[in-house]
Amino acid sequence: MSYAVGILGASGYTGAELLRLVAAHPELSVRTVTAESNAGAAVGDVYPSLAAHYRDVYYAPTEAAAVAGCDVVFCCLPHGASQRLMGELLDTAVPHVIDLGADFRLPADQYATWYGHDHEAPELLGRFAFGMTELFRDEVKSATHVANPGCYPTAASLALAPLLAHHVVEPRGIVVSAASGVSGAGRSLKLTSHFSEVNENVSAYGLLSHRHTAEIELALTHVAGEPVTVIFQPHLVPITRGILASCFARPAVDSVDSLDTPTLLELYRAYYADEPFVLVTEEPSGTKATYGANAVHVTVRFDPRTNTVLAFAAEDNLVKGASGQAVQNANLVLGLSEQLGLSTIGVAP
Amino acid sequence: MSYAVGILGASGYTGAELLRLVAAHPELSVRTVTAESNAGAAVGDVYPSLAAHYRDVYYAPTEAAAVAGCDVVFCCLPHGASQRLMGELLDTAVPHVIDLGADFRLPADQYATWYGHDHEAPELLGRFAFGMTELFRDEVKSATHVANPGCYPTAASLALAPLLAHHVVEPRGIVVSAASGVSGAGRSLKLTSHFSEVNENVSAYGLLSHRHTAEIELALTHVAGEPVTVIFQPHLVPITRGILASCFARPAVDSVDSLDTPTLLELYRAYYADEPFVLVTEEPSGTKATYGANAVHVTVRFDPRTNTVLAFAAEDNLVKGASGQAVQNANLVLGLSEQLGLSTIGVAP
Amino acid sequence: MSYAVGILGASGYTGAELLRLVAAHPELSVRTVTAESNAGAAVGDVYPSLAAHYRDVYYAPTEAAAVAGCDVVFCCLPHGASQRLMGELLDTAVPHVIDLGADFRLPADQYATWYGHDHEAPELLGRFAFGMTELFRDEVKSATHVANPGCYPTAASLALAPLLAHHVVEPRGIVVSAASGVSGAGRSLKLTSHFSEVNENVSAYGLLSHRHTAEIELALTHVAGEPVTVIFQPHLVPITRGILASCFARPAVDSVDSLDTPTLLELYRAYYADEPFVLVTEEPSGTKATYGANAVHVTVRFDPRTNTVLAFAAEDNLVKGASGQAVQNANLVLGLSEQLGLSTIGVAP
Amino acid sequence: MSYAVGILGASGYTGAELLRLVAAHPELSVRTVTAESNAGAAVGDVYPSLAAHYRDVYYAPTEAAAVAGCDVVFCCLPHGASQRLMGELLDTAVPHVIDLGADFRLPADQYATWYGHDHEAPELLGRFAFGMTELFRDEVKSATHVANPGCYPTAASLALAPLLAHHVVEPRGIVVSAASGVSGAGRSLKLTSHFSEVNENVSAYGLLSHRHTAEIELALTHVAGEPVTVIFQPHLVPITRGILASCFARPAVDSVDSLDTPTLLELYRAYYADEPFVLVTEEPSGTKATYGANAVHVTVRFDPRTNTVLAFAAEDNLVKGASGQAVQNANLVLGLSEQLGLSTIGVAP
Repeated sequence: MSYAVGILGASGYTGAELLRLVAAHPELSVRTVTAESNAGAAVGDVYPSLAAHYRDVYYAPTEAAAVAGCDVVFCCLPHGASQRLMGELLDTAVPHVIDLGADFRLPADQYATWYGHDHEAPELLGRFAFGMTELFRDEVKSATHVANPGCYPTAASLALAPLLAHHVVEPRGIVVSAASGVSGAGRSLKLTSHFSEVNENVSAYGLLSHRHTAEIELALTHVAGEPVTVIFQPHLVPITRGILASCFARPAVDSVDSLDTPTLLELYRAYYADEPFVLVTEEPSGTKATYGANAVHVTVRFDPRTNTVLAFAAEDNLVKGASGQAVQNANLVLGLSEQLGLSTIGVAP
Repeated sequence: MSYAVGILGASGYTGAELLRLVAAHPELSVRTVTAESNAGAAVGDVYPSLAAHYRDVYYAPTEAAAVAGCDVVFCCLPHGASQRLMGELLDTAVPHVIDLGADFRLPADQYATWYGHDHEAPELLGRFAFGMTELFRDEVKSATHVANPGCYPTAASLALAPLLAHHVVEPRGIVVSAASGVSGAGRSLKLTSHFSEVNENVSAYGLLSHRHTAEIELALTHVAGEPVTVIFQPHLVPITRGILASCFARPAVDSVDSLDTPTLLELYRAYYADEPFVLVTEEPSGTKATYGANAVHVTVRFDPRTNTVLAFAAEDNLVKGASGQAVQNANLVLGLSEQLGLSTIGVAP
Repeated sequence: MSYAVGILGASGYTGAELLRLVAAHPELSVRTVTAESNAGAAVGDVYPSLAAHYRDVYYAPTEAAAVAGCDVVFCCLPHGASQRLMGELLDTAVPHVIDLGADFRLPADQYATWYGHDHEAPELLGRFAFGMTELFRDEVKSATHVANPGCYPTAASLALAPLLAHHVVEPRGIVVSAASGVSGAGRSLKLTSHFSEVNENVSAYGLLSHRHTAEIELALTHVAGEPVTVIFQPHLVPITRGILASCFARPAVDSVDSLDTPTLLELYRAYYADEPFVLVTEEPSGTKATYGANAVHVTVRFDPRTNTVLAFAAEDNLVKGASGQAVQNANLVLGLSEQLGLSTIGVAP
Repeated sequence: MSYAVGILGASGYTGAELLRLVAAHPELSVRTVTAESNAGAAVGDVYPSLAAHYRDVYYAPTEAAAVAGCDVVFCCLPHGASQRLMGELLDTAVPHVIDLGADFRLPADQYATWYGHDHEAPELLGRFAFGMTELFRDEVKSATHVANPGCYPTAASLALAPLLAHHVVEPRGIVVSAASGVSGAGRSLKLTSHFSEVNENVSAYGLLSHRHTAEIELALTHVAGEPVTVIFQPHLVPITRGILASCFARPAVDSVDSLDTPTLLELYRAYYADEPFVLVTEEPSGTKATYGANAVHVTVRFDPRTNTVLAFAAEDNLVKGASGQAVQNANLVLGLSEQLGLSTIGVAP
């Protein structure tokens, strides 16, 4: 059978990526797509890349009623919009919502701390599982709705999870230095997405204050069973897609004598042995290895000279970091095979 | 049923792209891949993008015997190598060969003119159809083996074919000004593929002498039924994938009074009405609309002010310009649906 | 002595480039810079690249009075703004204005044709020389004010000028296929300057209607002494700076028998023998050879096979295509050496 | 007066950049340039960007005798070559050598540790000052010859120097996560400089073992007066020029209570108050702010939440990270003003 898909906010980058991914999925088919300023336009006029496949599909205005009757609704709205729309949406008897925004990822107090204002629909937070699938699979499977995690958190958390699950490193003060492509900032116009400003440029941003910090700490605290803190420093690099997370941690007191790189690689391979979308590599992969694919490549090192553990992850921020993981979560809540319709092969070169 | 695929020269870019495409094809499965300098290596070590899917697949040394027993063999060898290997390969009882190199595209005299030396296996030329599928479909369907065309010729010929089929433009002195991404030059090391030389740079090359000129003229002469000549000027632009062909022709004497853009667009839509991989667009698509997809987007204009017809085509040089069209041709020679396993959706943004 | 410089609209890209170039000029020094939305900001906060040199320089609001007392004023305002401001500006007793916008380049009738509305200050048009320096040097030298030409017209006209001056080619229907970096569209926000849309993309735009066509025809008609028409097709490529113009013309009836490439190259070398900023090269230069430099590299070919003359030019659109040529023109109107303060060396790689 | 300059290995990127910079220097003029495989070629044929300025300058074969009589010789040879040539070169009575390679930067024991073999001319090491100008100015001024530091070490050391000079942070286990453009790997051909491999890709490399680690530790130990260790992780990003260093350190026990960002910024401003080429910025600059300029932009933060000090530096690896700093050092050893001929303005956008 085929499940009917609705996408709210389908003219943004994560929405367009969902349209690409759903087209290759044997059990999902798009019923409704909505947009705000692009309402009324043909999908193929906004995204010529989708024109040949989605002939005669048009954006409806974004409202909860538009997706009534869909089996699963992907919510790709600007930050804040989904917490305003969600009550009505859940009342519309939509069986499953996968929210790709940041509105339903954090507990209410964490949300207020990192976003600077109170959550507008805190009573709905409990109805969403945090959809970092590999680390919260049981929660997702038993959930009705899913809050899909951010792009940076997915990369950083999967890079570090085996270390924290096994208490190999100190849980405090882990350094996450990450780089992201420009698509992570979306399709809206801003100077920091202007080609002439970004091209031939690498810059640090969000110093001390990037909101994804909270999601990384949430995921790793869950894995570690004890509080984890990270100092997360994002960088903007002139690529469209891709996130690379380079992480630096100090060995836990108990582990330092036995640490070496082969042991850590073995630990990673065991931890991710059954994960179809996580590849443990000997050498660190570049982001391009995952271009367009629902895949994270991770590796790990121990540096005895400086007593540091290094962990690395590469992903496509629009796929495993957003829309691909959303499909992965949709597969789970629909009871389908988790891998269905998702490719691990990067478009490279 | 599933057909066994062999790929000779699978460590180059067109070979790697075939591995990506075949993985998504329901009726093809890779049996053998070969390489020269990478023989013995794991596919996933040479292409981390393929590592998760092709675990434990290794490159065998390139030789005809390696692909014995395969149902279809894609030949992705450096220029000249396939004409030396082809005799033995055809003797190996391989049912179908799709040659992605330039060795079997041109008649022997044309080959000698443009390549500056005699063909080494002219007796085999007649066994290959010229695989520009949309323009030579009957030939491909009835052929055993296929010479897959070059990347530029595919874009330029599909941009211009309706004009020449309908004798709308003068067949002589058509200007084709095209731009290609760097992957078209392959994976081998050369200064003109060095990032620091190519990045933030646009340059013209191959002045008056690019060998793809002959293929464009071959295809368009076939379509027009009279000799066509083009002045083809390629440019190198700092993208990895993508070809844009901008073509300029003078109206034929008989057609000039009745020409206008809407009529031409209608003519294009009719000409390509049944083509799944050619999209006629109102506005000219950028190359990125076809990134990773087996698709060509074309459009056309008439400029009454200067009495010029303009035609445009965008494609991914590694897909519709190479490996995607090769799969399209393989589908035909194997008697499968031409569209099987091929997506028209570009990875964009 | 040192001349006081005012720059109206100095927070845009051509204004910022003027600040860079003037800093290296021994006889010019910046007195006043103005901006609209950035008024009040420090130059170094808007352009960190200028911060170390222009400490404590702030943008004043854009108005004619702000530059009173300057010896030369560069006008870098958005299209349309300078024709509204110019009357007042010239009344302010500014000795010399170099307008980098398009407002004072074309005669009133041509302006109306290409811009779709009447010029608002046609009575001032006669006070401006068209500042394509190499082709209009006498006019610039004897002028008080200069309308600096567009970026594409500079490249295309200098590529073709020797052919038309010597009547080597037919003056009608010349094809100019050109590619530009994104900075040519300025610093304002638009989807076609969004990194994720432009990167890994090449696209044609402005079909049949780009306004620079009129400037190319104006310049070449001036050179040829007879009407010249061009079909001008611009393309957007993922570079920040750089224009490459590839031009295709048919030989004039009288010249065709004697044409060959060496003769044409010799003709170009003679034509540009005394030009410090035009380099005739044997092989076509890429745009990067001119990155940041006030230089145009040109070359030429004759293709006997298709009876076509090809001419190529590469430049940095922000320098020789805008601010560099503006300084070159300022040197002339101020009676300085034309080369003063201008480098021909590109920042490459 | 004008000093005669020789450049050994002037067909590589740092050599070409020296040619660009020396052309703008009022007291230096190029007498001799040498190359290996490009010997005999015109400079302008290898670097069209230099063609207009260096007409009729040809590469001589690389040998010490070629630069006899020069006042200052810049040595831009491949790693290892300068230690083999240096004895003869110093015997040739060249007054001053600025070596841009890595051969004379480290003490013999450190050299052996990081390069895996003994130094071939250890007796000459003492004749070179380590030319990280801002931190070793007295040594450079009193030196005859200078070993110009690496690109990463310049950025990282200038980012961190104020913290270590004032003992604000723990000197052990400082994390330096840095990104570099591709030109840092030089002009030689390698897969990791291939456009199709680098473009749209970000990757970590040199895990635990990058040789620049030793230079960073050397410089910071000098500044701190006590041993400093860093874990240095470089990344390759798809830009031609530019290095961004993001550094993470733990506060020293004594300093932690009094730390805050404004205090640290004040400390940085004071430390670099008299430095013309170091700009302390409020917000972190991207690398493009320094494109083509001899400038480093630094900033600093304290994160009380995780108890971490962050320091950032941006530079152009070919200028302040190589050839620009080499000219800065040449100015010092020649007794010229340190700033002479060097611009701090980046070519941006």
